[in-house]
Amino acid sequence: MLAMTAEDLDRFLKTEFPEINHFDLRIEEVREDGVRLRLPYHARHLRPGGTVSGPTLMALADSGLYLAILSRIGPVALAVTTNLNINFLRRPGQADVIAEARLLKLGRRLAVGEVTLTSDGQDEPVAHATITYSIPPDRDRS
Amino acid sequence: MLAMTAEDLDRFLKTEFPEINHFDLRIEEVREDGVRLRLPYHARHLRPGGTVSGPTLMALADSGLYLAILSRIGPVALAVTTNLNINFLRRPGQADVIAEARLLKLGRRLAVGEVTLTSDGQDEPVAHATITYSIPPDRDRS
Amino acid sequence: MLAMTAEDLDRFLKTEFPEINHFDLRIEEVREDGVRLRLPYHARHLRPGGTVSGPTLMALADSGLYLAILSRIGPVALAVTTNLNINFLRRPGQADVIAEARLLKLGRRLAVGEVTLTSDGQDEPVAHATITYSIPPDRDRS
Amino acid sequence: MLAMTAEDLDRFLKTEFPEINHFDLRIEEVREDGVRLRLPYHARHLRPGGTVSGPTLMALADSGLYLAILSRIGPVALAVTTNLNINFLRRPGQADVIAEARLLKLGRRLAVGEVTLTSDGQDEPVAHATITYSIPPDRDRS
Repeated sequence: MLAMTAEDLDRFLKTEFPEINHFDLRIEEVREDGVRLRLPYHARHLRPGGTVSGPTLMALADSGLYLAILSRIGPVALAVTTNLNINFLRRPGQADVIAEARLLKLGRRLAVGEVTLTSDGQDEPVAHATITYSIPPDRDRS
Repeated sequence: MLAMTAEDLDRFLKTEFPEINHFDLRIEEVREDGVRLRLPYHARHLRPGGTVSGPTLMALADSGLYLAILSRIGPVALAVTTNLNINFLRRPGQADVIAEARLLKLGRRLAVGEVTLTSDGQDEPVAHATITYSIPPDRDRS
Repeated sequence: MLAMTAEDLDRFLKTEFPEINHFDLRIEEVREDGVRLRLPYHARHLRPGGTVSGPTLMALADSGLYLAILSRIGPVALAVTTNLNINFLRRPGQADVIAEARLLKLGRRLAVGEVTLTSDGQDEPVAHATITYSIPPDRDRS
Repeated sequence: MLAMTAEDLDRFLKTEFPEINHFDLRIEEVREDGVRLRLPYHARHLRPGGTVSGPTLMALADSGLYLAILSRIGPVALAVTTNLNINFLRRPGQADVIAEARLLKLGRRLAVGEVTLTSDGQDEPVAHATITYSIPPDRDRS
């Protein structure tokens, strides 16, 4: 049921979205219902106080659901985010951020999922997002 | 760690929010991290086609997180919803709706949680909401 | 450019959604980019303290955008809400609630709009919602 | 009624958030109810196809409301985003992005606003966000 493995997703990301290398994002697990990503703790996405910035967390959540969708429908570069809602819950620690993305619905036209972001080593989430992607009718393949 | 049992919550609801009796809402389980509610399938919250209406699902999700918060902090009638975000995922079946509310954060000023709504007997959720409540500083007790 | 007048919308609502009569909703204006509704102040959608309940405000916002979409594409009963996000800003007064719904995008598959809710006679909004509707491909006409 | 001018805000941003220089963000107007920002069209925040990336639009919206709040309450570095909801409406053009941030509520504890993002020279918005900030009780001044 999986259309792409972690290695496929990684190769696709590096080819289609070279700027993602900036973040050194790692795909840790790909399951039928979602993926787990790791964002290494680096100075470059920090805000004052040494915590990971809000925009970085939003980008991470968005990437998480994107990869969860691609793992099921294949390399559809033109799937686009239509809605993203995020709640920032706690200040992230000085640690990697783990993103658990989970599909709630994978329809023909819309995919919806939730992403829970946690500082590595902590139980309580730092942020939680729900995201909708629109899937192009012709599933334009790159 | 629980400040109110299912029976306490039920009594509080019926006293403070008599209009909820209209829905015949049932509190099925109260845990530290959330509650499970059941909305019996009745004609009065249906929309054309025999499905539970969107506004009814929104009210159910909102009540679910409210009760999850009260079960932890006690009967604070003045906790108010500040943000509610809901994704409607599938058409509900002709069945009871089960609401699983789960706290993501219970802070001094804000509580955030997610609520998954399912038609009884089905696996896939019909809707998913994330909700924020503001908790009054003095925790005004009714 | 308008497919339905206020009278058309009113007739459609009463036929397709008889439960809406419960609210005595009034369509005050229909423009190309949106509609204005009035929810008369009645005891039946109040919560303790004499204010209009949150679920009633959510239902009003949802109806507002639905009517704004129908006024442009005609009586498509099967347009469904896919996402609703609402911020509750102030306690509503003991007055009618005015809903100003405004289309942000009317695409072939998705329509997005915002709805500002105000207590009649006040300047500051009591709530603000952004809502997405999915429009069926065949625009199934009732 | 304004606590900070465009020049004050610009100086504050450059001191407290040096990474924002990366984006070359410009504060074009500061009014009582909001601010207007301009994000110059540069290659570095583009995604494949030459459009401004989603994460860049989210960061821009978030900054817009942050500056609108600071312009009213002064340089409170510790105001933090608690919720951000964004709808992506249209593909941005190859042009600067204009962000119009508008306050919907400026309370003692929470501030809520909306931000409309437009490609310079176009009428229709490319994205629309509603955002909530939590304001620290002591308004910690940097």
